[in-house]
Amino acid sequence: ANWIMLQGTEPAGTAPRADVWGFIQPTYSKDFSSPYAGKYNPSKLIGPSLDSQSSFGIQRARIGVRGTGFPLDSKINYFLLTEFGDNVLTDGGAYGSYKPVLTDASVTLNYIKGARIRLGLFKYPGAEEGLQGINLFPYINYTDVTNQMLLERFPTKGEVNIAPQPTPNANMNAFSQPGGAFRDVGVQVFDAFDMGNWEHTYAIMLGNGHGVQMSDNNSSKDLYLYWSSAYLFDKNAKGAFQPSVKMFTWYQNGKRTDVWNTSQEQDRKRYGAGVTYMKMPFRATAEYMWGRGMIFQGAQNPGNGTTTAATIFNDNKAAGGYIEGGWYIPNSKWELDLRYDTYKRNIGVMSGPMPEAKFSTWTTGVNYHFNKKTRFTLNYAFRKDSAVTTAVNNQLKDVKGLLSLQVTAAF
Amino acid sequence: ANWIMLQGTEPAGTAPRADVWGFIQPTYSKDFSSPYAGKYNPSKLIGPSLDSQSSFGIQRARIGVRGTGFPLDSKINYFLLTEFGDNVLTDGGAYGSYKPVLTDASVTLNYIKGARIRLGLFKYPGAEEGLQGINLFPYINYTDVTNQMLLERFPTKGEVNIAPQPTPNANMNAFSQPGGAFRDVGVQVFDAFDMGNWEHTYAIMLGNGHGVQMSDNNSSKDLYLYWSSAYLFDKNAKGAFQPSVKMFTWYQNGKRTDVWNTSQEQDRKRYGAGVTYMKMPFRATAEYMWGRGMIFQGAQNPGNGTTTAATIFNDNKAAGGYIEGGWYIPNSKWELDLRYDTYKRNIGVMSGPMPEAKFSTWTTGVNYHFNKKTRFTLNYAFRKDSAVTTAVNNQLKDVKGLLSLQVTAAF
Amino acid sequence: ANWIMLQGTEPAGTAPRADVWGFIQPTYSKDFSSPYAGKYNPSKLIGPSLDSQSSFGIQRARIGVRGTGFPLDSKINYFLLTEFGDNVLTDGGAYGSYKPVLTDASVTLNYIKGARIRLGLFKYPGAEEGLQGINLFPYINYTDVTNQMLLERFPTKGEVNIAPQPTPNANMNAFSQPGGAFRDVGVQVFDAFDMGNWEHTYAIMLGNGHGVQMSDNNSSKDLYLYWSSAYLFDKNAKGAFQPSVKMFTWYQNGKRTDVWNTSQEQDRKRYGAGVTYMKMPFRATAEYMWGRGMIFQGAQNPGNGTTTAATIFNDNKAAGGYIEGGWYIPNSKWELDLRYDTYKRNIGVMSGPMPEAKFSTWTTGVNYHFNKKTRFTLNYAFRKDSAVTTAVNNQLKDVKGLLSLQVTAAF
Repeated sequence: ANWIMLQGTEPAGTAPRADVWGFIQPTYSKDFSSPYAGKYNPSKLIGPSLDSQSSFGIQRARIGVRGTGFPLDSKINYFLLTEFGDNVLTDGGAYGSYKPVLTDASVTLNYIKGARIRLGLFKYPGAEEGLQGINLFPYINYTDVTNQMLLERFPTKGEVNIAPQPTPNANMNAFSQPGGAFRDVGVQVFDAFDMGNWEHTYAIMLGNGHGVQMSDNNSSKDLYLYWSSAYLFDKNAKGAFQPSVKMFTWYQNGKRTDVWNTSQEQDRKRYGAGVTYMKMPFRATAEYMWGRGMIFQGAQNPGNGTTTAATIFNDNKAAGGYIEGGWYIPNSKWELDLRYDTYKRNIGVMSGPMPEAKFSTWTTGVNYHFNKKTRFTLNYAFRKDSAVTTAVNNQLKDVKGLLSLQVTAAF
Repeated sequence: ANWIMLQGTEPAGTAPRADVWGFIQPTYSKDFSSPYAGKYNPSKLIGPSLDSQSSFGIQRARIGVRGTGFPLDSKINYFLLTEFGDNVLTDGGAYGSYKPVLTDASVTLNYIKGARIRLGLFKYPGAEEGLQGINLFPYINYTDVTNQMLLERFPTKGEVNIAPQPTPNANMNAFSQPGGAFRDVGVQVFDAFDMGNWEHTYAIMLGNGHGVQMSDNNSSKDLYLYWSSAYLFDKNAKGAFQPSVKMFTWYQNGKRTDVWNTSQEQDRKRYGAGVTYMKMPFRATAEYMWGRGMIFQGAQNPGNGTTTAATIFNDNKAAGGYIEGGWYIPNSKWELDLRYDTYKRNIGVMSGPMPEAKFSTWTTGVNYHFNKKTRFTLNYAFRKDSAVTTAVNNQLKDVKGLLSLQVTAAF
Repeated sequence: ANWIMLQGTEPAGTAPRADVWGFIQPTYSKDFSSPYAGKYNPSKLIGPSLDSQSSFGIQRARIGVRGTGFPLDSKINYFLLTEFGDNVLTDGGAYGSYKPVLTDASVTLNYIKGARIRLGLFKYPGAEEGLQGINLFPYINYTDVTNQMLLERFPTKGEVNIAPQPTPNANMNAFSQPGGAFRDVGVQVFDAFDMGNWEHTYAIMLGNGHGVQMSDNNSSKDLYLYWSSAYLFDKNAKGAFQPSVKMFTWYQNGKRTDVWNTSQEQDRKRYGAGVTYMKMPFRATAEYMWGRGMIFQGAQNPGNGTTTAATIFNDNKAAGGYIEGGWYIPNSKWELDLRYDTYKRNIGVMSGPMPEAKFSTWTTGVNYHFNKKTRFTLNYAFRKDSAVTTAVNNQLKDVKGLLSLQVTAAF
């Protein structure tokens, strides 16, 4: 699917003035990991609050409005979406303070041929897992590389690292600002070009580099570049399930300021490439990506520049990827899914408090599609994590199975 | 009215895809209580901020969407509601931090005959006063037993008790987390069965026991049981004003974790029974209920497990009930209401900082129904509170009249 | 335009039950001021976070519902609006805590001829710049007199003044409560009377005097008075662009409580007058206003009653005004705008930490109207600020140009 176009534009001539839409994701999760010395790190607890090993939750509850700003003027469209669910966007642990957020507020001007302009808060052009319409994401949880390397966290001055804690009520979430949600505020120039059965899409964006927070905390801006080329099996098919093979590559770069020492700045760089395949009854996706700078060290580690362990404000390297596939069982409502993902963090750091660590997960999944807008998802993840130092490895070696159940209902 | 069905399901075949709805409650309140030694406790001040004895407010401002997830698929319905008003859900005093919340986000699967399944965040099956559609509640304020014993509060570590304060700006609200709002996140199995003129309804729910907070702070789950049997005077009448006599009983039980000492847990148990009568031009309701554990000691007392006075983390007992009636004056838009409620807290504790206390209130009311969706309500409450120790009784003996005016406008 | 009527009522007979509406304002701002001694005060930084001199932002993202509460009952209408954008309402700097707010929740009862009654949270009757529909405001930023003297800020206990800071990440916003947004919670009696080509409008309001916070922090209430007389060039024209000359005057008075010493209260008084002219292709507006008490000293100065420098809790005087005009270039989508505004703060205070200061700004502007609901705005402001003491003047003398770009898309 061409997410850049699906999210940034509306089908010409048919979009309503104001289409109220959204989705709800009631969820249950249970973690089967064992504590180390009676204590837990975040990987073994259910987020976002990271208190216990089992919880009901509302992973997302999104309500929005989209359409064309003026009836019959298909040159301008807008996209507004709010999040009331409970997740890394709305529920930071540091002050126990859930609050709803705005996830999208954009206006697209479709006046210049080949250069549509999208302004505001929206998903930046980037990796497939973050860019795709999340209500159509076949899994409940992100891969480790996406969750850790791409889903940016923003520490605030005063937030300090938390050591592993016992349950009940481990309270391991040390961040209070909303996570980046693969979004930024800025301006994007983009368009798609059809050449026979091929569709080429480009996007260039300049943004704050501050996630959904809607104001920049420094004057440097982030640059995002994106290219995809898709072979369409059926040019007349539209939407998220358009039969196609899509190859894509992306790059982003910006500066971050140390919240503990605001005179310090450093680069945050990410890039990657991948391919998607969709043709009923099969779906497949593979991505690989690399990162340098601001490598996230876990929900318990916002970092502290006043010590030598700056934690999240670092210049470390990381890389990872995943491969996944789905089989929509013909003449049934069932879909079977399988995903393998791997992530290496702090590559080449062989000692100290933030050593090289490796995360691998096999996720098995089943989706039952009640109808086009409602499905039930069951995921079981087999996880194997490790680190090159004993202290950190002790926390990771007993990360085990994670069961997740979810209903997604869109409206 | 059968709230379990009215809130959890949609009328088959007629529900829209996305019905935007909600209501607004502009309010004015004035308290006529006297201070003790120049200082006030929360009962004498206007909530949720508990600063002064008179205030305009927006008791509730709810916006939501409900419907069936997919046109013509009456097997699945959803219910989404957000709260932007100012009350115990949105405005904790501890950090002076108003924030909107999600009150409901549920999906109901109506596939199994006799066992509908509701998932997500919604009102748990329980006492009538909390369960009913609040926009139809004939009074402005809850009874004491409902407000204190059922409307759960969740203290956070760091919140401490506040001694009585002088006005202006007494600032007596010591809680920052949203109150429970008779809601939980979890899964409910339920249905209603018609047998002649009788309608029997059951509901079983398992939830976090953490109110609207959407993530559990411990691994134990709360259990809720509900049964009602209603005699329908008119089987064809539907909705909230269905003529009927309904008898019901309910039970709930769960564990709570001490926020000041997270290794400690204890039971929180509640149960009750009641009867409602509705046949124009009369309405009557009576309920009685009992509770043990986590007995709320007032908005100024979040508790502190580090001292012997653990306040809200206690194993005390309480009980209370109310009886009320309404007369819809025929051929007019007027409704007259009268309610008596009583509540006994910390039963049998005859000394110490949290002694047995008794609360009784006569509430007189008038509703003027402009139309089916808009009404004006005037309430005047005569209150008589007391406690068995002099220190606490001094704070309670001068709690007196409370005048409340409100317009409820639904859309 | 008659904002009192446009916002408080609905056109008889045609208003829908629930009209979902709102607008989005993606924005980019760049400040060209110079630091003093390497440090910046708020005037030189981009709000609301006041971290750096350039930022993309979402100045407003409003979603609401308005209509008549019951189809065909034109005697009652309601107005509900929420703010999800990033501004003084939603993003206080003190805890870095963005949160959405409710900006309007009102019900209007149109039963008494000549005395319509509006209840709830809404814009109080006052100065034109604050009262007008903000989605139609031709400029991106407010004048200084409106921003400083009328847009009330509410400090919280614990918030202290911040000295000028270096960038990146100056973090100069010291307030955490939402700004007043020219709104209050209370009750307004109002109506408009047509006499030939003249339309006279009055409004009297009683409110908390606590902005959008929805609960009063003291028992005294604010009084608002408003009168306007408009000559209508075309009696049949309606709406925001109705051709007319309007003269108006207003007054408001209330008490504020010192958050640092809650036994102290003092008056806050504001009044003013102005005239508007609208007849295509020209628009002109002029206002002047005066204030005493609670004179805002800047986003870095919430005040501290424990020292002699009480900052925002003061009895100082201020005054200011502006004159502006617009030319809608005939047969084009372009509009040219020019505005001059001036403001004098702490009048007559010739020494100390809060001396007399003067702010003057010329704002040049261009609006390009894509269609009736979408426009692009470019503003460049030439600013000249000064103070009578050297210490404060050093902070103000290098406040220079401010460039702002914005798209406003209404739906």
